[in-house]
Amino acid sequence: MSAKAKIGVLGASGYTGAELVRLLLRHPHVEVALLTADRRAGKPMADVFPQFAPFDLPPLTALADVDWAALRLDLVFCALPHGTTQEVISDLLKHVPSMKVVDLSADFRIADPAAYERWYGEHPRPDLMSEAVYGLTELHRERIAGAAIVANPGCYPTASLLALAPLARAGLIADVVIDAKQGISGAGRVFDETTHLSMAGENIVPYKVAAHRHTPEIEEQLARLDPAHRELKVQFQAHLVPLDQGELASCYVTTTRAVGADELREMYREAYEEEPFVELLADAPSGVLEVRETNYCRVFAAADEHTGKVIAFGAIDNLWKGTSSQAVQNLNLMFGLPETAGLQ
Amino acid sequence: MSAKAKIGVLGASGYTGAELVRLLLRHPHVEVALLTADRRAGKPMADVFPQFAPFDLPPLTALADVDWAALRLDLVFCALPHGTTQEVISDLLKHVPSMKVVDLSADFRIADPAAYERWYGEHPRPDLMSEAVYGLTELHRERIAGAAIVANPGCYPTASLLALAPLARAGLIADVVIDAKQGISGAGRVFDETTHLSMAGENIVPYKVAAHRHTPEIEEQLARLDPAHRELKVQFQAHLVPLDQGELASCYVTTTRAVGADELREMYREAYEEEPFVELLADAPSGVLEVRETNYCRVFAAADEHTGKVIAFGAIDNLWKGTSSQAVQNLNLMFGLPETAGLQ
Amino acid sequence: MSAKAKIGVLGASGYTGAELVRLLLRHPHVEVALLTADRRAGKPMADVFPQFAPFDLPPLTALADVDWAALRLDLVFCALPHGTTQEVISDLLKHVPSMKVVDLSADFRIADPAAYERWYGEHPRPDLMSEAVYGLTELHRERIAGAAIVANPGCYPTASLLALAPLARAGLIADVVIDAKQGISGAGRVFDETTHLSMAGENIVPYKVAAHRHTPEIEEQLARLDPAHRELKVQFQAHLVPLDQGELASCYVTTTRAVGADELREMYREAYEEEPFVELLADAPSGVLEVRETNYCRVFAAADEHTGKVIAFGAIDNLWKGTSSQAVQNLNLMFGLPETAGLQ
Amino acid sequence: MSAKAKIGVLGASGYTGAELVRLLLRHPHVEVALLTADRRAGKPMADVFPQFAPFDLPPLTALADVDWAALRLDLVFCALPHGTTQEVISDLLKHVPSMKVVDLSADFRIADPAAYERWYGEHPRPDLMSEAVYGLTELHRERIAGAAIVANPGCYPTASLLALAPLARAGLIADVVIDAKQGISGAGRVFDETTHLSMAGENIVPYKVAAHRHTPEIEEQLARLDPAHRELKVQFQAHLVPLDQGELASCYVTTTRAVGADELREMYREAYEEEPFVELLADAPSGVLEVRETNYCRVFAAADEHTGKVIAFGAIDNLWKGTSSQAVQNLNLMFGLPETAGLQ
Repeated sequence: MSAKAKIGVLGASGYTGAELVRLLLRHPHVEVALLTADRRAGKPMADVFPQFAPFDLPPLTALADVDWAALRLDLVFCALPHGTTQEVISDLLKHVPSMKVVDLSADFRIADPAAYERWYGEHPRPDLMSEAVYGLTELHRERIAGAAIVANPGCYPTASLLALAPLARAGLIADVVIDAKQGISGAGRVFDETTHLSMAGENIVPYKVAAHRHTPEIEEQLARLDPAHRELKVQFQAHLVPLDQGELASCYVTTTRAVGADELREMYREAYEEEPFVELLADAPSGVLEVRETNYCRVFAAADEHTGKVIAFGAIDNLWKGTSSQAVQNLNLMFGLPETAGLQ
Repeated sequence: MSAKAKIGVLGASGYTGAELVRLLLRHPHVEVALLTADRRAGKPMADVFPQFAPFDLPPLTALADVDWAALRLDLVFCALPHGTTQEVISDLLKHVPSMKVVDLSADFRIADPAAYERWYGEHPRPDLMSEAVYGLTELHRERIAGAAIVANPGCYPTASLLALAPLARAGLIADVVIDAKQGISGAGRVFDETTHLSMAGENIVPYKVAAHRHTPEIEEQLARLDPAHRELKVQFQAHLVPLDQGELASCYVTTTRAVGADELREMYREAYEEEPFVELLADAPSGVLEVRETNYCRVFAAADEHTGKVIAFGAIDNLWKGTSSQAVQNLNLMFGLPETAGLQ
Repeated sequence: MSAKAKIGVLGASGYTGAELVRLLLRHPHVEVALLTADRRAGKPMADVFPQFAPFDLPPLTALADVDWAALRLDLVFCALPHGTTQEVISDLLKHVPSMKVVDLSADFRIADPAAYERWYGEHPRPDLMSEAVYGLTELHRERIAGAAIVANPGCYPTASLLALAPLARAGLIADVVIDAKQGISGAGRVFDETTHLSMAGENIVPYKVAAHRHTPEIEEQLARLDPAHRELKVQFQAHLVPLDQGELASCYVTTTRAVGADELREMYREAYEEEPFVELLADAPSGVLEVRETNYCRVFAAADEHTGKVIAFGAIDNLWKGTSSQAVQNLNLMFGLPETAGLQ
Repeated sequence: MSAKAKIGVLGASGYTGAELVRLLLRHPHVEVALLTADRRAGKPMADVFPQFAPFDLPPLTALADVDWAALRLDLVFCALPHGTTQEVISDLLKHVPSMKVVDLSADFRIADPAAYERWYGEHPRPDLMSEAVYGLTELHRERIAGAAIVANPGCYPTASLLALAPLARAGLIADVVIDAKQGISGAGRVFDETTHLSMAGENIVPYKVAAHRHTPEIEEQLARLDPAHRELKVQFQAHLVPLDQGELASCYVTTTRAVGADELREMYREAYEEEPFVELLADAPSGVLEVRETNYCRVFAAADEHTGKVIAFGAIDNLWKGTSSQAVQNLNLMFGLPETAGLQ
């Protein structure tokens, strides 16, 4: 690609949108050509996030006022609320059929309409569901490269699936418990007891017990990875802990057969030795601070001789590899750029 | 008991010792008559912990200089390092055979010498092991009341076992994963990367993977509770999260048969409705802040229809119910005092 | 006093009210006989703060529904919003003229009507202003003991005035800068950017520059302490820092004449050696953690040879000595009880 | 400059060294050609800081083993302990007289040998003192551009002097109190009570009362800025507060004559409107989070009508503008590069 790719960010005034813009400004091969934000339309981005003052960015525009034909964008990131994206994407593909889309909502992450409906309600555009490719880069690299719509994964599935993928591909998962912990930024820009420093600051809080919407996304992906496409019921539980950014998935796997330490090590090494953004640790799991504000996922797996189970950990920054920087990683693939462009 | 009980604290200059002294000063039926600390011998307690300055306390004494016969203590708390307590207790029971002991180390928590040896090495006084009663008050109330030596439980086993006991008593646990999270005070008065604010403050760190010494303690107790004394292999994993005090055990149980929500609720209600220090929650699990600096354990259990598993949570203050206040709760039982004396 | 004093808490469902109730439950000589909370009227206190479940407390009542004559309270604590207390107190003194009042709002802290009006607007009941005694216990002990209405001080003035009182009494303050830092609990139960963990958690934020309402309260008290009642303009600046509870006032004093280290030490020793709740440090100032959840103020003063100024620090728990426990300390004085009753 | 400048970092295995290397890797016009670390000599940088694994960096070398003539460096950053740098710099200038030096220790920050001796002891190379230029970029831009040795300022002086410089240049400072607050990273890689999360995490701690070594550095620079070179005694006090990175200097100025709001605004606007890295706020001071991991200093000044004083705030990231990124800003000047190169 010779000229810079023209990029739009829909929903630029939210946290995810702002994080995306920050990453795009550092990216050598793209140009931010559109920022939408309905309630802030007409204002400069720096009004909402003062740190953008030094940069030359287009003003915030209402989605309805965008002149798609004139803009001729190469790609849009959709950072819109869950449940609103299907119609938007459908509309804009009518205007510019060649435009690529990376969607950061949950709307296209699940391919099975029945599973989607069970957790989220009826999908308004089931016809589009099959067009979207699940954007966990390390798992679907080739399909992402050719995709028109990429559904960027949730942060919990990203950490969990990278921890579990080598076992899943080997058909070794008989049963799995995923205990995930995340910083308060995972609760979003919400102002209540869950985010107030005096209440959250010295607390550990489990939430959405036996009801987390990331479960079907993880289950569907594990079934795809499994050689026999076996469907597993995944026990997933999320917790808020008192830091800002960072996420750890601790995965406890009952295996379909005994797995020794050497076999496990070799399995993970093969899976990840070529990956630019997965770091496999040899001796102990990583904390989340070590991957803060990076696109890295740090993975550690151990065979527990005492119980026979395998324990696997995935540590990421929930706002980066869990959201925005993985979206940029996907953009790189979709444009044939080096996968690490703008991310190191 | 008419007069106040005379109490000694061995190892009073550590964190646990100081927390004990604080609780004992608030207790209406006891008197602190001895404080030992070998390296600080001769100094007043207020030299080590200035907040004790307003109180009339005995000076710190070297263990070897104690005149046991003259003191005629009713009970000693041993807050000495793991592995050192067996000889000390054996010695002092020679001097004052009637004296009661609450040991806060790990030395008497495991009854099976083989299990002890596998995790800690050879036990120096296996003959005393059978005399000690495991001091998780809610599980062994009657035996504690008559015991000469009580082995106060570890904080992780306390939270885990209170979350799991009703299921264990019903013989329902086929397999269990315990994912535990604890504040930095759980690492003790250690000064390194694990406790430095800049490194621990925005981190989530799993530690001792597949090797945590609290495992055999939990396994032994679960087998005792099980009607058939079945021995389970428990998958236990600990994590440090960035707060000071507080501990949550999230327990994922594969049950021996299907357990419905109503049956589960009734089972936990029966187990805990009379307990003064266990609060059963109805709708959602508790954070740890709600039990900070209390002797309460907050328990929540839910049946997950999707997976068929039961999820049970136990939230405590690791320094209180997890250590010092449970020791005082045991003292109350051993002296026939109201179990809540000095603890509300 | 033989029987227990009957106490009411107006505004019991707020943070300050709850903290008061917690302290009163531990107090051996009082009985909580009334709790008001207009919006929560009819509910038990444990509905708002679950930790009160084990205690026998009166239900929350609407202020208008209280039968003052029947209740015959000995004292009420008013924990109502600033600006609403004057009418309430005026009303209830009509019903029960003998009832004592400790007001925790700002409404009676300033005695000079002109100063009050300049910072807060017109005072609705200037006639009552002169009846109220300023409740910084260590400064006005005798007048508090005989008062009908005590205006409990703000937390910033408490820390600042205890740090400065010995200098003020000696007429030594020519000019003073007070730089105060407080934890997020000082912002109250407010849910916005100032209290959100992701925004407050790694921040230091000065607020209300050149406009803090605690200024006239400090100025009035310093003038009273000054032998010549000189009126000073105090430079006061508040900052929020990322902890929950705790407050430090750092005071920089230009003195009216040179003050040496020995003179300074002696001056502070004399002022505070008999005080049960002021701890004077000899070598270095205290952090706030050392006074957390106590009624203590830790004071340190040093003469700076380089600049000739005196630096004085006062460290308190803003919710305890800065608010609720000082209110109980005043109650003790008003009833002729030992000043430390219920506070150690 | 056509080719990339060859840069060395002496003391690369410390925090400051690592932060420098991180910035240099992002810089388009430099190349890291030497990293020294005596105790880690022979190891790759990624052994000490794993995040450098993806980058091609020279191995850590012992200072004594460096072949200066062969390397022909353009500039070295000295991130060595205070008091050790004078000899090192003197030595290496003998080897490569044309090499430029940015020193991050305190060794060359003070120009007056008497002032240096009073606070630090005798200076081993007073002859070199006069060659060094004080590297607060915004104050000494032209002299830095031509300097052979730049003494990078301390973080406290940087925030304080940027807050105060416009007043100082106008000769308006009669007296000043600086109350500074800093995150725990300011205490460095120290493991003790001051950095332990359980002790520092809920604390506010003043330190080095009436004895802070940054005082003479601030005094000397204020005297240089003053039109009459008046010498002031500065009251400087530092505090540790519980965050990782961030620093705020709150400055309280008694002025030599009355200064109104309009005059003040204009004075600061003129001083900073062209500065790429100073942001002047109009309505309220900034918190430190807004400048985290940036080279910006945010400044706010207000005239207090009540007291007649001026209050000025400077907020920076102590590890960036307070240390490493300002060093890079100076490098840019010394090589005639755009001042913002590598810093946005």
